[in-house]
Amino acid sequence: MARDAEKTRQKILEAATKEFSQKGISGARVDNIAAEAGCNKAMLYLYYGNKTQLFKAVFDNMVGSLVNAVPFNVDNLPEYAGQLFDYYQEHPETLRLNTWRRMEKDTAEMVSPLEAKSMKNKVECIKKSQEEKKLPNFLSAEDLLLLVIKISTIGSDDSPEGNMPLRPRKDIRKLVVDTVRRLILNSNETSD
Amino acid sequence: MARDAEKTRQKILEAATKEFSQKGISGARVDNIAAEAGCNKAMLYLYYGNKTQLFKAVFDNMVGSLVNAVPFNVDNLPEYAGQLFDYYQEHPETLRLNTWRRMEKDTAEMVSPLEAKSMKNKVECIKKSQEEKKLPNFLSAEDLLLLVIKISTIGSDDSPEGNMPLRPRKDIRKLVVDTVRRLILNSNETSD
Repeated sequence: MARDAEKTRQKILEAATKEFSQKGISGARVDNIAAEAGCNKAMLYLYYGNKTQLFKAVFDNMVGSLVNAVPFNVDNLPEYAGQLFDYYQEHPETLRLNTWRRMEKDTAEMVSPLEAKSMKNKVECIKKSQEEKKLPNFLSAEDLLLLVIKISTIGSDDSPEGNMPLRPRKDIRKLVVDTVRRLILNSNETSD
Repeated sequence: MARDAEKTRQKILEAATKEFSQKGISGARVDNIAAEAGCNKAMLYLYYGNKTQLFKAVFDNMVGSLVNAVPFNVDNLPEYAGQLFDYYQEHPETLRLNTWRRMEKDTAEMVSPLEAKSMKNKVECIKKSQEEKKLPNFLSAEDLLLLVIKISTIGSDDSPEGNMPLRPRKDIRKLVVDTVRRLILNSNETSD
């Protein structure tokens, strides 16, 4: 019985990830999610609460998959950026879920505990590397991490006039990796 | 009469910018736009066609405002990035409209002629500067432009784990400008 419950919860999560990723929070239909998961709405509400709470569960689950699949590698940030880029390309729901959250909700009210914890750990790793002079100090640990992640979203996320012309994915990956490498070049010529 | 028509068209555009920016393409209600603009739906359809065509008009108008307000400055890309950052912060509808387009439509089918033209001009300016050795060649003109624009969206657009902690806007602006400066440092130490 417990195993069946776990299986149903997992099916709901998968169906909800698909529905939210495609249509966003307000566009998603709980009926569709229940039908796709093969359960009834009452059970869905019992397991996950309301639609917003279900979205939060989906989001946390997505962050869990991401941090498992792409372990942080403070000793090779360019390669970490390359792997993050690959993951975003192969799992478009990752950035889509994040974007819907930003577009539809106040992000501060929708914080993912796992996301916050993972960010904190990464920042601490970078700080330690900076203290050991393995990474440059011209940026704070927070800023360096932010830039690495931002650059990794190239080709998966865009701004007007920044929309990518079609080009081979391997070329974009090289751009991502080379830029992060350039960014952390341990040189003194910087800033002001 | 011609002036009244122009005024009505402008009011529709403003109301539509607000509605699309808030709710996206499928979420926007043409009734709301007509009511806010003080005209009837028939007139709106007469001027702008269907909802998708109205969105395209709004998008092109947004790009026009952006390129007018932030002229491209190939001789000072860090400062250009800073001004672009300011503009995104002060006109959140810019990135929101772009994001809705990406989330809801096939971007290739929704190309803005003004956006394409503006990108082409900027790339040509960068190429010329690279030929004159005023800008480094370690990146193609297209890639350099893409990175500058991408970095300028920091703080206005995000990825999971890349969500900005709250901090003063001037600090983020400095990060944007310094990073672009670092990126175009005319040095030889790069890549592989």
